[in-house]
Amino acid sequence: MSEQLLSYQQLFRFGKAVFQKIGCSPEHAETAAETLLSADLRGIDSHGIARLSGYVRLWEVKRVNATPDIKIMHETPSTAVVDGDSGLGLVVAPFAMQIAIEKAKNVGTGWVSVQNSNHFGIAAHHAMMALEHDMIGMAMTNASPLVAPTFSIDKMLGTNPICVAAPAGNEPAFVADFATTTAANGKLEILQRKNENTPLGWVQDAEGNSSTDANILKKGGALLPLGGDREHGSHKGYALGAIVDIFSALLSGANYAPWVPPFPAYVPMPAQQPGKGIGHFLGAMRIDAFRPAEDFKLHMDNWIKGFRNARPSHGEEKVLVPGDPEREFEVERMKNGIPLVDSVTKDLYHLAGKLEIKFI
Amino acid sequence: MSEQLLSYQQLFRFGKAVFQKIGCSPEHAETAAETLLSADLRGIDSHGIARLSGYVRLWEVKRVNATPDIKIMHETPSTAVVDGDSGLGLVVAPFAMQIAIEKAKNVGTGWVSVQNSNHFGIAAHHAMMALEHDMIGMAMTNASPLVAPTFSIDKMLGTNPICVAAPAGNEPAFVADFATTTAANGKLEILQRKNENTPLGWVQDAEGNSSTDANILKKGGALLPLGGDREHGSHKGYALGAIVDIFSALLSGANYAPWVPPFPAYVPMPAQQPGKGIGHFLGAMRIDAFRPAEDFKLHMDNWIKGFRNARPSHGEEKVLVPGDPEREFEVERMKNGIPLVDSVTKDLYHLAGKLEIKFI
Repeated sequence: MSEQLLSYQQLFRFGKAVFQKIGCSPEHAETAAETLLSADLRGIDSHGIARLSGYVRLWEVKRVNATPDIKIMHETPSTAVVDGDSGLGLVVAPFAMQIAIEKAKNVGTGWVSVQNSNHFGIAAHHAMMALEHDMIGMAMTNASPLVAPTFSIDKMLGTNPICVAAPAGNEPAFVADFATTTAANGKLEILQRKNENTPLGWVQDAEGNSSTDANILKKGGALLPLGGDREHGSHKGYALGAIVDIFSALLSGANYAPWVPPFPAYVPMPAQQPGKGIGHFLGAMRIDAFRPAEDFKLHMDNWIKGFRNARPSHGEEKVLVPGDPEREFEVERMKNGIPLVDSVTKDLYHLAGKLEIKFI
Repeated sequence: MSEQLLSYQQLFRFGKAVFQKIGCSPEHAETAAETLLSADLRGIDSHGIARLSGYVRLWEVKRVNATPDIKIMHETPSTAVVDGDSGLGLVVAPFAMQIAIEKAKNVGTGWVSVQNSNHFGIAAHHAMMALEHDMIGMAMTNASPLVAPTFSIDKMLGTNPICVAAPAGNEPAFVADFATTTAANGKLEILQRKNENTPLGWVQDAEGNSSTDANILKKGGALLPLGGDREHGSHKGYALGAIVDIFSALLSGANYAPWVPPFPAYVPMPAQQPGKGIGHFLGAMRIDAFRPAEDFKLHMDNWIKGFRNARPSHGEEKVLVPGDPEREFEVERMKNGIPLVDSVTKDLYHLAGKLEIKFI
């Protein structure tokens, strides 16, 4: 596969133009493009510009509303439920996170559960909005069912990611952002393109037997919860995915479990719709609602240095702190550009042609 | 190993008597005994009455204060930091959880980070206090370092458990309570007693090689984060353990990372003490701060039934919902008694003799 390097600015302008073309306001189009591209910058290529045409297809089948009236349905001093009005999750989630931050300013913490939304890009983008306010940020979302709970062959949960971002002082922030499965679906897609197998413990076949087939999802198989099997703690990964579902959808009134709408626009919607759209959960905790932010950050620096100085295992170079790889990607890609594989570049050219806008 | 069955009431009276004998008030002694025994009832034998003499030894070396002045050091409408004054975590954590619940009544959610505490028993006991108030409860704690982060041979984190409890309607509550490692230390202790090996993926040796030696912790080895190795997502288990540490200790001013005090009283305290005691984090979210509790519970019932009705894998009997095994234990043991292995019974007789109280 050959790759092409494009600058963040080039891709941002294109992304914004696309979102405006389908009817988003300039402000929403900018937010959506920024959220989407934060994935490419941080090295999560599966969740970035490669999905742009997928979002447009959702708009084409009227599952995405380009001009949503995003609003608070219910609130208390520290909580809110937001209705995303079928808007892009890329826009709805930052809106909800901003509410969480405002509530944290007022009463110490803010927690917002969101219904009637769509995919929100990477969780880290939203959680990290809290950092500049000296807050801990949290973001999670449910997603369409690809994951079989422990002991089951039915796909009942999405890869349901969780992000927690905590500020530090001189050290960079702690940012943990991960799917609650052994491996995210994007990892399978990479192996599919290379015609390679998965390690054992990532997927199972339609009967629940362990499998190494990267295409197994198309054959009735499922992703496995973090842990892989019962003996290695898959019931914990299952519980984590379930917690994300409860916070994101049961609290908000979104769809949950196997009834979460799929991302691909061509996949039919589930027959049962116990809620509206997909659900997110955003949280912000003001550090100085607990202790002075400077004290916290001093100890976070000490914590981070402790881990960086931990002795590496034989054959390993160094111990990483959550967020390290993504931050290194961001610095490098902001400087040198974002690599796009040919299939993505072609897809974007095609999209540009269809919408009658210039690609670059 | 032979076992003896003792009733909950017998063990509760004994536990309470022991805690009173070391100086706890009757109220604190009752709370401590109840918290401790909730582990035995729920089948988590490693965290229950088997640890009673361990708590007493911590009191003997003056690491546990039997008459603590537990107090709020700082608060906002939705947050507090509690100083446990070196009290039993068995008493400090319910105190802190009660504050979280009160704050949730007032402003929708309550979040309490605790410093200067000791081991708190099982997380589920505290999180489940929220259920009767139609709230979601959360509890986590850090613990002394037994776990090597991904790529490291140094033990930097405890098994740092997380519990989330959410109420349902006709169905029993969802209660997920799990260590953020592949296997909890208690699982190793069971294998040690049986002279059996661990599965691969639970532990590593002093050089970071995978191991199946259930005694490897005594030989410089470490427990592995949930996931086991990098290829199977151990960086996610590591991140989860880190999040628990940050919420429990960095927010509160407790010790963290490799500096968390050990449970066994004979193990020397770490040379560096960046904080006070061990840390917990307790949270409560009032359901109707998001949506009417009846709606939530209706959908939780639907969620739970969906999982119970999911098709089991070949050879499996049924799909479980988090909390099912522990609840079945609780019903059975409250009725038929709590089984104690001989070594525990002997230890309790010895303890009774030392404190000059009657065992049963």
